Amino acid sequence: MAKQAVARKRRNREGEVIESAIEVFWRKGYPAASIQEVADHVGVLKGSLYYYIESKEHLLFRIVDEVHRQSTEILEEVQALDVPAIEGLRVYIERHVEWYLRNIKEVSVFFREWRHLTGEHLEIVVQRRRGYDRAIRDLITAAKNDGDLGESVDEKYAALYMLAAVNAVPHWYSPGGRDSPKAIATAFADMTVGMLEGTRAAKPRPPERRSAA
Amino acid sequence: MAKQAVARKRRNREGEVIESAIEVFWRKGYPAASIQEVADHVGVLKGSLYYYIESKEHLLFRIVDEVHRQSTEILEEVQALDVPAIEGLRVYIERHVEWYLRNIKEVSVFFREWRHLTGEHLEIVVQRRRGYDRAIRDLITAAKNDGDLGESVDEKYAALYMLAAVNAVPHWYSPGGRDSPKAIATAFADMTVGMLEGTRAAKPRPPERRSAA
Repeated sequence: MAKQAVARKRRNREGEVIESAIEVFWRKGYPAASIQEVADHVGVLKGSLYYYIESKEHLLFRIVDEVHRQSTEILEEVQALDVPAIEGLRVYIERHVEWYLRNIKEVSVFFREWRHLTGEHLEIVVQRRRGYDRAIRDLITAAKNDGDLGESVDEKYAALYMLAAVNAVPHWYSPGGRDSPKAIATAFADMTVGMLEGTRAAKPRPPERRSAA
Repeated sequence: MAKQAVARKRRNREGEVIESAIEVFWRKGYPAASIQEVADHVGVLKGSLYYYIESKEHLLFRIVDEVHRQSTEILEEVQALDVPAIEGLRVYIERHVEWYLRNIKEVSVFFREWRHLTGEHLEIVVQRRRGYDRAIRDLITAAKNDGDLGESVDEKYAALYMLAAVNAVPHWYSPGGRDSPKAIATAFADMTVGMLEGTRAAKPRPPERRSAA
């Protein structure tokens, strides 16, 4: 029992360290933040922090890793749904955006700072992001094969378009704005499906454009 | 005549300084880049650079200012077209993305580095970006008033969605890829109009979602 209590305390303290690192990296930016500030935020001496983490970069990797784990969980939930791919994409965007908005600091640290990782850490993140983008593109292809996409949708560009739009949400969101995370998530899901279903090649251009082209 | 030649030479040299700064900031990132490196790239002594510019930040502001000037020019051209707003938005995205892709270094420096500006420089850029976003939102509202938008399009979120998608193009574009800047620009214009015209509220959710909500 005593051993379990120690293990639990250790896990709780680890959680506090990660939470503090998110807060400090979010406020100061990763390059400017120091381990000392994280220790101050937890309320322990800098030395005892090294019982839980190896380095500042290790802390960043833990945050990035956790964001990725939760992201993948949402994707896997959606892949397991018994619905057409286009509906899967809608549900995916909705859950994803809502989760972003409810974890805004963590997600912002992820997007702003992951490029500061090095070596194996960076390699892991790049690989995962690639696999992740591929999964989204596969869902778009499946929707196209179902006949649910607009006639001229290019899967690669559609994936880049929607992921950029969705991944920018943490940049402009301010908690306490007029809409709930849920309402924003639904609007973004609707726009994504609208883009995928509604895209068709342009009608002939107005004369002004023809001469300019 | 001699006076004009001196003025012309000065202008040319100023252009070279800006071009070199774009190259150096693009390769090293603004915080890590030094005036010395810009001078080396131009092929002059660091001291003579101060004949053309006041400081490193002043150089960054000149780049940002030039990107903004060209951006505004495209927007004003589009606003002057005698076409429905939805067509204006299409032409705008097409010209804008193509211009981004043909000026990738300059535009990347703009998006990556403008936050490093300070004081009045930063204030000017923030104001301009606000005016710019407002102009796009006004075009969307005009398209809505024309009855050209999907039933459930929220102008604010639609503007954020499309601008994020379009502004991320310089992040992933690699010159020499399979498609021309023109082809990518057309795909992005089509997707934007598809999103604006095609967005509608979701049909009822699959049962799995209802219980989870």
